[in-house]
Amino acid sequence: MSFEFDTDTAVSRAGDDLFHARVTDRWNTFAGPNGGYVLATATRALAEIMPAPHPLTVTGHFLRPLKPGGAEIRIHRIKAGRRHATARASVSQHGKDVLVVLATFTDLGSVKGRELVLGEPPALPAPDAAIDPLRELDAAMIPSIARRMDLRVGEMPGFARGEPSGRPEFTAWMRFADGRPPDPVALVFFCDAMVPTVFEIGELVSSTVEMTVHVRALPADGWLALRVRTRHVIGGYHEEDAELWDSTGKLVAQSRQLALLAR
Amino acid sequence: MSFEFDTDTAVSRAGDDLFHARVTDRWNTFAGPNGGYVLATATRALAEIMPAPHPLTVTGHFLRPLKPGGAEIRIHRIKAGRRHATARASVSQHGKDVLVVLATFTDLGSVKGRELVLGEPPALPAPDAAIDPLRELDAAMIPSIARRMDLRVGEMPGFARGEPSGRPEFTAWMRFADGRPPDPVALVFFCDAMVPTVFEIGELVSSTVEMTVHVRALPADGWLALRVRTRHVIGGYHEEDAELWDSTGKLVAQSRQLALLAR
Repeated sequence: MSFEFDTDTAVSRAGDDLFHARVTDRWNTFAGPNGGYVLATATRALAEIMPAPHPLTVTGHFLRPLKPGGAEIRIHRIKAGRRHATARASVSQHGKDVLVVLATFTDLGSVKGRELVLGEPPALPAPDAAIDPLRELDAAMIPSIARRMDLRVGEMPGFARGEPSGRPEFTAWMRFADGRPPDPVALVFFCDAMVPTVFEIGELVSSTVEMTVHVRALPADGWLALRVRTRHVIGGYHEEDAELWDSTGKLVAQSRQLALLAR
Repeated sequence: MSFEFDTDTAVSRAGDDLFHARVTDRWNTFAGPNGGYVLATATRALAEIMPAPHPLTVTGHFLRPLKPGGAEIRIHRIKAGRRHATARASVSQHGKDVLVVLATFTDLGSVKGRELVLGEPPALPAPDAAIDPLRELDAAMIPSIARRMDLRVGEMPGFARGEPSGRPEFTAWMRFADGRPPDPVALVFFCDAMVPTVFEIGELVSSTVEMTVHVRALPADGWLALRVRTRHVIGGYHEEDAELWDSTGKLVAQSRQLALLAR
């Protein structure tokens, strides 16, 4: 059997520096394919040509709306050093660039060095004691991406009750619904897998301009705890900062995206 | 008269997509030319070919140690849309890429939209009542970059007294020493202009792997208030998150870098 995420982010080599992919409609938000899903697909293509196995820092600039359907991913390797390897990728659909990516990979399994963690995982009830928010929602309110994941929250988000809290932040447990364990490529996706924080300030559309993910460690199996927060909306632009903590309480990824409210 | 920052980040066109620059030794840390200074130089080259005037989000991957001396900057425009323009740049020295950049520009002067700022500028005494840390230091302890700036702090950083505080964070006022007003390109520099936060946990070397700057607004003239903080050192890798607030108390830039302690 193969997992949904692996099937739907698969890339096939079509040339020295060219891969084909298929953006499915199974990871759709209400605004089309999720950006993190397509960024993860590009990351998989990069992994094919990188001498190091894991994405360490991945930046994507989203140029045009993503659509379900075929995509071409063109790769250019920039440097392969002893510790870090850097490359770029361009994802195009119908002959136009939709996403450009710059990434550095490393081997997270061989990382050794100082540890000092001053942050903490989000305070969430244990997954078994938490709420499945999808059970509370009308099926028509659930986009396809949410069916790919198990979600658990401490309390129903305000926006889902029609009462945005005014605090643009969420905490939640997440995992793939089909049991696929998390790995660095999946973390690129999970950083962007929650609904936009600005839903909690009454906004309904947020378009990502740029998103950078730092994979900080190999995740353990099990649930991921997400904390995502916006602190500054300025001229409609806002940052969305996410952290992912694994089931052992370890920080495994951080991301920041710059996004724009609907005009 | 021309300002030091403008002279030292100047680029001259040498072809359709090629610029020449000179990395001077006037922005050196103890580890060579400051990364934010060279990233700002690349941003200036990008500005030359962009249809929009201001960097909005700039990501640089640092591939090799920067050196004073000549540099070539090769530009490739990726997309010029109505609101956003995206391009990449490669900075090379002696024929080798030292820094690769992916950036999206916009016109920050025409940005209109919702405002909601939940963060606050750092709590610092007024610049006139604050401490000039360079006055307290032996001249041999002051790298050239510090002579390009005025700095003011609420109290002397622990590392400068030989007593790292254990808290990897700083707050400070900053401006150019020669009176050059801040602008978006300068913000790219100022986000990286403080000594590494990890000096406060007893580390002496921090190498930037990747740095992303979001310019959030056009800065007013005068001092900039910096807050920079590290929360997670994992396997020697650590993020360094900076905010810059202008003299009117407005957030004007945010940055995050992923850096690595000396091995």
